[in-house]
Amino acid sequence: MITGKNYIGSKLTANGTKTYKTFNPKENKETDWTFYEAIESEIDEAVTLASEAFQTYKNFSGAEKASFLNTIADEIEALGDILIETYTAESGLPEGRARGERGRTMGQLRAFATLLEEGSWVEASIDTAQPDREPLPKPDIRKMLFPIGPVVVFGASNFPLAFSTAGGDTASALASGCPVIVKSHPMHAGTGELVASAIIKAAEKTGMPNGVFSNVNSSGIEVGQQLVKHPKVKAVGFTGSIKGGTALYKLANNRKEPIPVYAEMGSINPVVILPSALEEKGSFWAKQYAGSITVGAGQFCTNPGLLLAVKSNALESFITELGKEISEIAPTPMLHPNICKTYQKGVKTASEQSNTSVVASYDTEASPNFGKQKVLTVAGREFLKNPVLHQEVFGPYSIIVQCENDAELKTVLDAIEGQLTGTILGNSNELAHKSEIVEALKERVGRLILNSVPTGVEVCPSMHHGGPFPSTTDAKYTSVGVSAIKRWVRPVAYQNWPLELLPNALKNENPLQIMRLINSEHSNKSI
Amino acid sequence: MITGKNYIGSKLTANGTKTYKTFNPKENKETDWTFYEAIESEIDEAVTLASEAFQTYKNFSGAEKASFLNTIADEIEALGDILIETYTAESGLPEGRARGERGRTMGQLRAFATLLEEGSWVEASIDTAQPDREPLPKPDIRKMLFPIGPVVVFGASNFPLAFSTAGGDTASALASGCPVIVKSHPMHAGTGELVASAIIKAAEKTGMPNGVFSNVNSSGIEVGQQLVKHPKVKAVGFTGSIKGGTALYKLANNRKEPIPVYAEMGSINPVVILPSALEEKGSFWAKQYAGSITVGAGQFCTNPGLLLAVKSNALESFITELGKEISEIAPTPMLHPNICKTYQKGVKTASEQSNTSVVASYDTEASPNFGKQKVLTVAGREFLKNPVLHQEVFGPYSIIVQCENDAELKTVLDAIEGQLTGTILGNSNELAHKSEIVEALKERVGRLILNSVPTGVEVCPSMHHGGPFPSTTDAKYTSVGVSAIKRWVRPVAYQNWPLELLPNALKNENPLQIMRLINSEHSNKSI
Repeated sequence: MITGKNYIGSKLTANGTKTYKTFNPKENKETDWTFYEAIESEIDEAVTLASEAFQTYKNFSGAEKASFLNTIADEIEALGDILIETYTAESGLPEGRARGERGRTMGQLRAFATLLEEGSWVEASIDTAQPDREPLPKPDIRKMLFPIGPVVVFGASNFPLAFSTAGGDTASALASGCPVIVKSHPMHAGTGELVASAIIKAAEKTGMPNGVFSNVNSSGIEVGQQLVKHPKVKAVGFTGSIKGGTALYKLANNRKEPIPVYAEMGSINPVVILPSALEEKGSFWAKQYAGSITVGAGQFCTNPGLLLAVKSNALESFITELGKEISEIAPTPMLHPNICKTYQKGVKTASEQSNTSVVASYDTEASPNFGKQKVLTVAGREFLKNPVLHQEVFGPYSIIVQCENDAELKTVLDAIEGQLTGTILGNSNELAHKSEIVEALKERVGRLILNSVPTGVEVCPSMHHGGPFPSTTDAKYTSVGVSAIKRWVRPVAYQNWPLELLPNALKNENPLQIMRLINSEHSNKSI
Repeated sequence: MITGKNYIGSKLTANGTKTYKTFNPKENKETDWTFYEAIESEIDEAVTLASEAFQTYKNFSGAEKASFLNTIADEIEALGDILIETYTAESGLPEGRARGERGRTMGQLRAFATLLEEGSWVEASIDTAQPDREPLPKPDIRKMLFPIGPVVVFGASNFPLAFSTAGGDTASALASGCPVIVKSHPMHAGTGELVASAIIKAAEKTGMPNGVFSNVNSSGIEVGQQLVKHPKVKAVGFTGSIKGGTALYKLANNRKEPIPVYAEMGSINPVVILPSALEEKGSFWAKQYAGSITVGAGQFCTNPGLLLAVKSNALESFITELGKEISEIAPTPMLHPNICKTYQKGVKTASEQSNTSVVASYDTEASPNFGKQKVLTVAGREFLKNPVLHQEVFGPYSIIVQCENDAELKTVLDAIEGQLTGTILGNSNELAHKSEIVEALKERVGRLILNSVPTGVEVCPSMHHGGPFPSTTDAKYTSVGVSAIKRWVRPVAYQNWPLELLPNALKNENPLQIMRLINSEHSNKSI
């Protein structure tokens, strides 16, 4: 049952008077639930509880935290169809997507549980003493990663489950040993509360301290700002717009004690189409990219918003085919009327830029809030002159940049900002001769993809979902895959510490049987 | 020979008109050399050269970069006594320290060379494809760490060799594959130029691209600011004051493309003295700490500036003994008259705080620029009330805080800012019963030391020399030890890339024979 209240630890509260509702974009009407915006005292209580919970939670074993995460996954599943129905009502996304995203969310939680059970993620490193070394004895030094404290997670509009309440940020922070306060995304506050109830139930079932998780409602920006400014908050996870992410980043940097903000923001995910791809598989890629540009109404962080190729007859055919394919796809609802409005404004602005022309446009009347796809094209030199065309238009939009030659294409890659992904279409022989283009693309992105579409992010240890600014605020870290845990920890070294008082990961006998660096050699043995 | 010019790549330039001199604090007079402040065009040329050099340098093999680093060490050694003489003249530090620090600097360079030759530091991670997976095939994903581009390193006043021109920041950045532009520290610009000449010679001998290293002179702050703001600069390493480090941090965060600043700044390195240490070894620790507080005129980032203990007769004896020991030590020259003046001002301010009293003071007349040691004491409740007493006084100064009980001592630990190190003196039995104090200290520091002095930082893989703000700007990273290389890199993932076009670290056959994570298992085997 959705109460509309905040979870301050395990307690449901509604101390404020400001309320808001979520919206069903498909039916173009408000949902039935009323949500109570959190007030300052509730925020402070959530953070204080988290800070207290941290004192014990940080020392829970990997097995204990793994049990918590697995139980969260169980409890999310146990919510049953009410979760799927709430998700589809609040997002306009289809049921299949809801079920798929629920599966991914549970899979992420279980993947972190497996990581904790294995245990090597703490990067234990041991240098044993050399008491007889001249001129000075060498001390015993051992280090490993420890959690940093309460983490604030901002739910994402476009992934109500996988990047929100119990999404990758929350799962990775809880796995690290950090309590989490979620600032629920206002567009799917009901979905958020249901998932929060599953987390609270799991925390109680597995004996986690009260305050290890809280969920606060907010339709504005003040609650988020108060959370980021709270002195007991030690890090922030965010998925959303460049504007929102950089505002939080600046806020966090200007605190008395600055804290890291891991924000995943905008990306137009450039795709370089080499001549071989156009000549050998032009029709195939036209169909694939028509799907990739429009899937989920284009509301993916890896949506291909920029296609680049050198002018040729084959490119012209590709553009014609892509235009035809994409024009035939029926639009689907966007997440919220406001997102649809922003999309329409972005498309209008891009279309009005001089020397652009339309490749594909869905001009038939569509239901309110449905995202009508648009693909433009422009010459390389015009794109280089006009930074407006470099900006993300969040939705089913893309622009094809036609370059004179490889040199101009490389100049375009050098000119664009940091991106999550960069894709190349072409055969291996041709790719081997395009190292300058590959290198230029690599400098701009966090993931290089060959012969695929960028949409669809595999959740696995080798995934890197993070790129140079402004695609993220810290290109070193990923928000997808188990490496995401590294955002919420820092190393501490112990010097000459009694072996019996060291954490298990650093003890001589290696009770956790983890991989460690011992005197510069990797080993899972005891000392 | 010291020319006083800037190294813009391999070219010596002096295009500006502003000059400055270094100072011999021991002899209280200027040195003979004149240094030419770099101007904007020189800075731009250095960064542009670095950016061009990056295009090739980033792809050099580990063995090639290792040869470069080892040759830098050789060339520093080949400078011979002129380096030692210049170092002692410009710093006032004794010859033994100069030779020791030269050895450490060469050792650091060789340690990074060894790391590169071994090769596992790139954190290669491979998830192989599952083309038959349902509902969707799993792609092949492989990631590893890559260098990010030109790095600016600010030389440190207190380590003219080990934390300056070819110090840990430069060595780690060059090891990662990033070109380096050093902003030479104005107090030892001659030492800096000599070391720069060794790096340039090594770069030429080992076939490194011009621009892989530059060294620019500056006595003010503008040159540093211009470097940090330059769009082609991708990261900054800094060791120095909180004021200087946070100014650069804010400057870098406010760029159009924010870049990371790894600043190691102030630390007062709290030392908790448990009753067992006072009772069993009070005299020993009094002697040890008299040495640790005054060694190198207290000009170490790990200088023990804060001693904490619960009131007792044994504590009173310790304070008396420490006072006696420390008063008998002959002062030594500080690095520069300005540093000595700042020290004297800091001591005066601290001494004037109400309810402090003097434990030890060297009141005999000393030569100009010599740092006269001072130790104060204050009650815990007074310390808690007065943040002035929490501040670092850079030099041979410390304050002993006398607490009523463990609870007050813990409150003091909770109240202080982030620190590089925290030390506990006491036997293991007692330590086992002080987990609250240990935990409170651990939350504040990057390294926990038992029964030693904090001065003296072992250079080894398990060392962590970095702590919560304001001791550093990023507690995740160390500036000492081979993990320092992690500051200058970011992961990039390859999806479905042709095996023959992957970097060697990611190839199936594992030609570098490195440790990798393959389908979630650590292995140094081929696939």
